[in-house]
Amino acid sequence: MGGADVDRRLAAQQDRTSPASLTASPVARASIDLNADLGEALGVWPMGDDEAMLEVVTTANIACGAHAGDPTTMRRACAGANRHGVAVTAHVAYPDLLGFGRRFLDISPTELTDQVIAQVGALQAIAAVEGAQVRGIKPHGALYNAVVHHAAQAGAVVTAIRELAAGPAPGGAAGPGPTPLPLVAAPGSLVGRLASEAGIPVLAEAFADRAYAPDGTLVPRSRPGSVLTDPQAVTAQAVSIAIDQRVRALDGTWIELEARTLCLHGDTPSAVALARSVRTALREAGVGLEAAL
Amino acid sequence: MGGADVDRRLAAQQDRTSPASLTASPVARASIDLNADLGEALGVWPMGDDEAMLEVVTTANIACGAHAGDPTTMRRACAGANRHGVAVTAHVAYPDLLGFGRRFLDISPTELTDQVIAQVGALQAIAAVEGAQVRGIKPHGALYNAVVHHAAQAGAVVTAIRELAAGPAPGGAAGPGPTPLPLVAAPGSLVGRLASEAGIPVLAEAFADRAYAPDGTLVPRSRPGSVLTDPQAVTAQAVSIAIDQRVRALDGTWIELEARTLCLHGDTPSAVALARSVRTALREAGVGLEAAL
Amino acid sequence: MGGADVDRRLAAQQDRTSPASLTASPVARASIDLNADLGEALGVWPMGDDEAMLEVVTTANIACGAHAGDPTTMRRACAGANRHGVAVTAHVAYPDLLGFGRRFLDISPTELTDQVIAQVGALQAIAAVEGAQVRGIKPHGALYNAVVHHAAQAGAVVTAIRELAAGPAPGGAAGPGPTPLPLVAAPGSLVGRLASEAGIPVLAEAFADRAYAPDGTLVPRSRPGSVLTDPQAVTAQAVSIAIDQRVRALDGTWIELEARTLCLHGDTPSAVALARSVRTALREAGVGLEAAL
Amino acid sequence: MGGADVDRRLAAQQDRTSPASLTASPVARASIDLNADLGEALGVWPMGDDEAMLEVVTTANIACGAHAGDPTTMRRACAGANRHGVAVTAHVAYPDLLGFGRRFLDISPTELTDQVIAQVGALQAIAAVEGAQVRGIKPHGALYNAVVHHAAQAGAVVTAIRELAAGPAPGGAAGPGPTPLPLVAAPGSLVGRLASEAGIPVLAEAFADRAYAPDGTLVPRSRPGSVLTDPQAVTAQAVSIAIDQRVRALDGTWIELEARTLCLHGDTPSAVALARSVRTALREAGVGLEAAL
Repeated sequence: MGGADVDRRLAAQQDRTSPASLTASPVARASIDLNADLGEALGVWPMGDDEAMLEVVTTANIACGAHAGDPTTMRRACAGANRHGVAVTAHVAYPDLLGFGRRFLDISPTELTDQVIAQVGALQAIAAVEGAQVRGIKPHGALYNAVVHHAAQAGAVVTAIRELAAGPAPGGAAGPGPTPLPLVAAPGSLVGRLASEAGIPVLAEAFADRAYAPDGTLVPRSRPGSVLTDPQAVTAQAVSIAIDQRVRALDGTWIELEARTLCLHGDTPSAVALARSVRTALREAGVGLEAAL
Repeated sequence: MGGADVDRRLAAQQDRTSPASLTASPVARASIDLNADLGEALGVWPMGDDEAMLEVVTTANIACGAHAGDPTTMRRACAGANRHGVAVTAHVAYPDLLGFGRRFLDISPTELTDQVIAQVGALQAIAAVEGAQVRGIKPHGALYNAVVHHAAQAGAVVTAIRELAAGPAPGGAAGPGPTPLPLVAAPGSLVGRLASEAGIPVLAEAFADRAYAPDGTLVPRSRPGSVLTDPQAVTAQAVSIAIDQRVRALDGTWIELEARTLCLHGDTPSAVALARSVRTALREAGVGLEAAL
Repeated sequence: MGGADVDRRLAAQQDRTSPASLTASPVARASIDLNADLGEALGVWPMGDDEAMLEVVTTANIACGAHAGDPTTMRRACAGANRHGVAVTAHVAYPDLLGFGRRFLDISPTELTDQVIAQVGALQAIAAVEGAQVRGIKPHGALYNAVVHHAAQAGAVVTAIRELAAGPAPGGAAGPGPTPLPLVAAPGSLVGRLASEAGIPVLAEAFADRAYAPDGTLVPRSRPGSVLTDPQAVTAQAVSIAIDQRVRALDGTWIELEARTLCLHGDTPSAVALARSVRTALREAGVGLEAAL
Repeated sequence: MGGADVDRRLAAQQDRTSPASLTASPVARASIDLNADLGEALGVWPMGDDEAMLEVVTTANIACGAHAGDPTTMRRACAGANRHGVAVTAHVAYPDLLGFGRRFLDISPTELTDQVIAQVGALQAIAAVEGAQVRGIKPHGALYNAVVHHAAQAGAVVTAIRELAAGPAPGGAAGPGPTPLPLVAAPGSLVGRLASEAGIPVLAEAFADRAYAPDGTLVPRSRPGSVLTDPQAVTAQAVSIAIDQRVRALDGTWIELEARTLCLHGDTPSAVALARSVRTALREAGVGLEAAL
């Protein structure tokens, strides 16, 4: 994190009580990462518009074959990310293609750890042949939600990241292993806390198109108003998060939300259009867009 | 290594119709690699006796999740190999759990290449966390047989190995990629020839318990006499291959067979016992047993 | 086959030398089945526009979970077919989701037979809860092509159909089993001949959008001109097949082609449009459209 | 349920307060079903000793491809059951081969219903070709445990059974559907209650080798003493359940346990031996052994 970041933080703190301050010069140096889930096709079945999203985001979370993404799909996504200068994270998931990784699976911690390691390894090899590199790890779907609070599974993900870093450097190079891959996680999540305690960099993630509860958690999708569809509301929330590190909760109160990366969706044409709007709004607000990893 | 060995070698030299003559002192250095397929369990389903075979072989071909071997099974196999000082190869296969990779699959070259890369990458990551390293690649089952002659699939495997080596070193280290992983293949196979032409080290493999045709190919399993079950015949063939680099074909003629590694089976208790006999016979014949990778 | 059919045949025979005769009254009684592959989604991944195609076809070949189609997708497709009065066939396939059943798999005859039985059974149960019924069996993709000539696999499919019919009626009803489910197959295929010999009704299938070789086989997709894209050419071929039971081969010669069902594609918006054109052209030519099963 | 059953019930009620009454004549007419999970191999991977267990049990719960059991394995198990005069139930499960159906999966009710229907249908067709018939449904593993209390999933299983019965009889026969397939479930389970309310016959199941809590539930496997391994204790519990419909809980108190079927395990040689002991002990105690379905 550089000096610009620190300046932005100070400016944001001074200004924390008033809404959406888009004025002072430090603001112009605010920056955020935009991430989206890519490579979620499977064999002949397409998913989303990866090419379009690669022009919007700075980080691509690429499926690793567990919830989506056969090796050829993974490779195509890595090639696309590399071509667009977009960073790659391993989008690790429960092994459940039929459920797209969106159903909680009571997998044992040992098996979850090993799944994460194998999934990351597969993507690392695929990325490498395309000249790309896995720069972080983001749990997908039901696993993302589970590790917010599920101690055993959160611990298993952290163990996987630690072990991936502690092993001898892949390729047989001598010397200590690389630094741990950063983890993308929900702010306040148990997995984030455990990862930090284990010396793993954690990137807090926010959503431009989801309503927040006053305690900083996402309003469940089952609740009315949980998903923002009005482009203006979505872009305003994105700008507020990026510049002021805060967001207006569903009850109207402002809550702080320190997020280093903003998740965008690209699974429908309108989602892609919305993602483009967010990018444009952030740029117009002077927010720098760059991979956080 | 005993004098009997030397005597036999000398006798063999006198008796040899072809040149390939190994003069006196090199005899003392005869050595061969013993490999077996391990990590072929799946979830709750066991397969073979990995622990027993790890005491017999010098190289373990570990399944990568395509024909067998979930991540936890892969890890257990890597840990075992590391504990016994046994080298690890990636046992890459068609993605066909139900068929155990033993059925030809007309997969496209592109998809096969990407499968091999992803499978190797998954095993590399798993191996690394156990302090082990993938030192070679051996195609499994129907893929092993296909790439003896199937140009597109043989080329796809070679491409995968080249690409795995050409990419930036995994882990982000600078500098050129590592040297290509050696390929274990049948002598005279197309994949072996293509790999050699591409600068990939090739380890010719022989079988102690399979009958050979006069042209050096394996007698198909469907033919009577194709599989040797008599322990004396099997161990004699193993010693003959290791020391004299030749084998008596099914028609009684001697054929040359330069093999660097000998494949043993461990899927039944009697197979394990036979593998032990081969190891003992080789040791008694003065053959050094060491990983070729 | 009713009297109308016989009349049509006679009329067709009289008229066999001249092109595209759409005149006499027998023509008005010609009829054909239009089939398309439906239910080929998988979990969250969509495929084609089933609703649109259900308005075009008279028979839906519904995927059974092997190459596509989880149980919920299968059920949705059965419900749609039932709602539109469209007949259902079981679209049996190699168990290969990643390859969408489009890659030859050297599965053993025994396993293939059992696969077909299990796939048909799953669809029968799903169809029954929607008030529909499986009225035939059509091999999919690479299996469809293999059983044109592959004796062991063709025999395995025929065995499955015989066994499905010979068993006690499902549901525990007393009495002999039902008559065998009809098989949809390519004209001249080995599987069609074996099925006929086994007393299984066979429905010869033709394609409106594929070029034929002079010997009545499809021109391989790899050859130029193999796929017809010009709507007029496609609809003309459909009408010619339906009314005159013949088609102009790629070399311009007319060949006889007795087809009871015409396969249409619906995997792209333009394919759906083309399918609609074929339907319209057939109706305008006085061809009756009805399920052949 | 026959007259012997009613007699036994009356006798048991009269005698409910005194311990282990193995005397009166009604006892001689007590009977129980012995069930075991069979067909749990997968492709090349074996599981248990089906042949041995078929000589012990009266009902075989056959895996349907979701947690184990490819079509050929299913068929072999059906053939064995038929040969031994053993009844068949569909052992339906979460679609999770890697986890052997032993991990809770938060599958939606709709998808669970459709899974159960498709799994039962596949087994029905396979069974029919072997002259057998699916006579009941038993949820497997984590699903069995979930539907003890999970309202949505319990309801989904019940819906599947109702729908399987309500549809037109498979095979196209006219008339109303068959009576619902009986459900094997834990005594006191929510799924059992919901099934009964829906008019589905429910067979309460007990375990000879598991300790019971005073409230009639199984002591969790994680607790010491939860699994009985002493052959005498196991056979005594089996006899007590079969004759007196009660069992001594872990705290020493006697609890009533009306079970129509007793689950035996056969996954290890010692489990098979134990199952044989239970059968022998029941026979010696005069308990009739017959399928409850």
